[in-house]
Amino acid sequence: MSFSFQVEATNGAARAGRFFTSHGEVKTPVFMPVGTVASVKGLSQELLDQLGVEILLNNTYHLYLRPGVETVRQLGGVQKFMAWNKPILTDSGGFQVFSLSEMRKLTEDGVQFRSHIDGSLHFFSPETSLAAEIGLGANIVMAFDECTEFPADYERARKSMEMTARWAKRSKDYFEAHKREVPWFEEKTRQHGSEQSQALFGIVQGGMYPDLRRESAERTVEIGFPGHAIGGLSVGEPREKTWEMVSATIPLLPADKPRYVMGVGTPEEIVEYVRLGVDMMDCVMPTRAARHGLLFTSEGKLNIKNARFARDEGPIDPNCHCPVCARYSRAYLRHLYSSQEILAQVLNTVHNLSHYLDIMRRVRETIISGEFAGTRSAV
Amino acid sequence: MSFSFQVEATNGAARAGRFFTSHGEVKTPVFMPVGTVASVKGLSQELLDQLGVEILLNNTYHLYLRPGVETVRQLGGVQKFMAWNKPILTDSGGFQVFSLSEMRKLTEDGVQFRSHIDGSLHFFSPETSLAAEIGLGANIVMAFDECTEFPADYERARKSMEMTARWAKRSKDYFEAHKREVPWFEEKTRQHGSEQSQALFGIVQGGMYPDLRRESAERTVEIGFPGHAIGGLSVGEPREKTWEMVSATIPLLPADKPRYVMGVGTPEEIVEYVRLGVDMMDCVMPTRAARHGLLFTSEGKLNIKNARFARDEGPIDPNCHCPVCARYSRAYLRHLYSSQEILAQVLNTVHNLSHYLDIMRRVRETIISGEFAGTRSAV
Repeated sequence: MSFSFQVEATNGAARAGRFFTSHGEVKTPVFMPVGTVASVKGLSQELLDQLGVEILLNNTYHLYLRPGVETVRQLGGVQKFMAWNKPILTDSGGFQVFSLSEMRKLTEDGVQFRSHIDGSLHFFSPETSLAAEIGLGANIVMAFDECTEFPADYERARKSMEMTARWAKRSKDYFEAHKREVPWFEEKTRQHGSEQSQALFGIVQGGMYPDLRRESAERTVEIGFPGHAIGGLSVGEPREKTWEMVSATIPLLPADKPRYVMGVGTPEEIVEYVRLGVDMMDCVMPTRAARHGLLFTSEGKLNIKNARFARDEGPIDPNCHCPVCARYSRAYLRHLYSSQEILAQVLNTVHNLSHYLDIMRRVRETIISGEFAGTRSAV
Repeated sequence: MSFSFQVEATNGAARAGRFFTSHGEVKTPVFMPVGTVASVKGLSQELLDQLGVEILLNNTYHLYLRPGVETVRQLGGVQKFMAWNKPILTDSGGFQVFSLSEMRKLTEDGVQFRSHIDGSLHFFSPETSLAAEIGLGANIVMAFDECTEFPADYERARKSMEMTARWAKRSKDYFEAHKREVPWFEEKTRQHGSEQSQALFGIVQGGMYPDLRRESAERTVEIGFPGHAIGGLSVGEPREKTWEMVSATIPLLPADKPRYVMGVGTPEEIVEYVRLGVDMMDCVMPTRAARHGLLFTSEGKLNIKNARFARDEGPIDPNCHCPVCARYSRAYLRHLYSSQEILAQVLNTVHNLSHYLDIMRRVRETIISGEFAGTRSAV
């Protein structure tokens, strides 16, 4: 078995653990930076290493369109392709098909869509999506789901959830039949001395309806995945709804397997999700906000564009130990941002990502030391 | 005396040496990366350190407009501002006023121009330009010159050269009267135990006319600068003209002071300029070409956009030891470039700059070892 998960410490529902993949172990709770097209925008893989990133998320939809699955497969899979020898997770493309592409046509079989790049016509089904994820060769791959839009009425959300449940089974079947075709399968199996495959996670949908979430969780768990995700969140709903859905769903997912909430959240929220028992999260927020000059600090958000930083010699956050806060002043970072220098995006991203990763590191430490519940303000 | 130059080895006209500034020594021949607005586009100062950059060029025109001289002065000068504690050279703004700004009006006194950013009205004279350079506080500052356009007829080039000669004298006078106002003057003077000031270099003009170049060199040298530059090149003239002007001028500049050719050249050309006796060069070529996907290799130029690199697992240049060639494939770099990822610009710039810096390192080594003249193909 190439993928296993170990809970190391618990503190209320919160827990610290680690999982093991063919490309190394990952300590949880973990925040996964988003590297859409096999690059965390602006950061070299050397920098990601330096910041302590353990696992990245790549988007199947984007890599499928460019450079194409066959190219990545021939180059040995996405880790070799992007020269990142640590674990990677790919989503199934479901979310992007629903949020980025044009003219999609949904049937039981799958979804036809047009590329947002050149308008060309494509078709994703559980089978074609999993074929893409197997060709890309990430360590964790996601079942192909239908991301229910917001708002969706009860009937629509039910139908969509049921489709996701049927697609989950088809994803699993396809994966089991083809998982030995992953580009690094033979090499890693030889290296580890045991059969190494990707790990396929199931995804819970159900819109904003707790009973649909419950049914979706049950039907997904039944299929038998080594990990479970909660999808269909961060689609425009109020934050309390997101919280409510995660709260309602987490207890229904097996505690001996990783639980992943897709596409959340703010620095405060990720701590609260850990409190509910979430092991994995990903979000574009730290990287995207950075590119817009929004920086996270121990004292809240800061807009580096602000004129009051023009002659400010201090670091972004005096409590931060990232390489940017160690070297550069707010005045310089404001100047770079105002001058639309590339370096502004690079340095802002380094800082924001460090902020997220540091939070997760401290959360993990306090769970292990047993101090987590009492440290709401300390993390 | 804060600035001194030492020739360490010669080999024909080519020489290896070093100069000493309040912010450290610089080994020559040296290539200075261009950091226009106090940033080498896309590269952190950590990366510049790692690549072995010894001295940077910043543009006074850009920093004067944004963030403004007073801001940089209050923040302790441009080294502190950009968190780069090695030497920096600023040009005088003359070249940018003539190439970037709009509606310039030239008189004996100076030049009125409109900002290329917001159209606001400004005035540069030898005195105001030097005041800006003193406020920015770079280690080497350049006299304010008139960059003669190309083509320019003999009479126009003579008049322009004469203006530059008069402006050189005014630059020097202003500098001598105000050089103790540099932001770090007191701190560095205390640290070094001797008066530390910037070094002001004179600039030779004269269009494409060897006799005007000769006269300009004589009049500039007469003023008494600790280093001399050849300006007014790379303004659209054929490369042979550039070469002819440098060849004609270098022998007229004192051999015991650094000789700097502004705004040149290709990897091949910089070696040939060293052969003529040039100690310092700067050029946007490696950084600008990188942003357009043009990469320099030991076997010539390469356009990373090219489809033939789509599945090429090799490095940009198998003979290169830069961090990009050590880790990333042409296939990945092509993908980043095609996807318009910021990281493409970052990694391409690291490689191209490494290529230039490596050439200069090897040139210096072969001059010192006495092998330079015979190694035309080796460098």
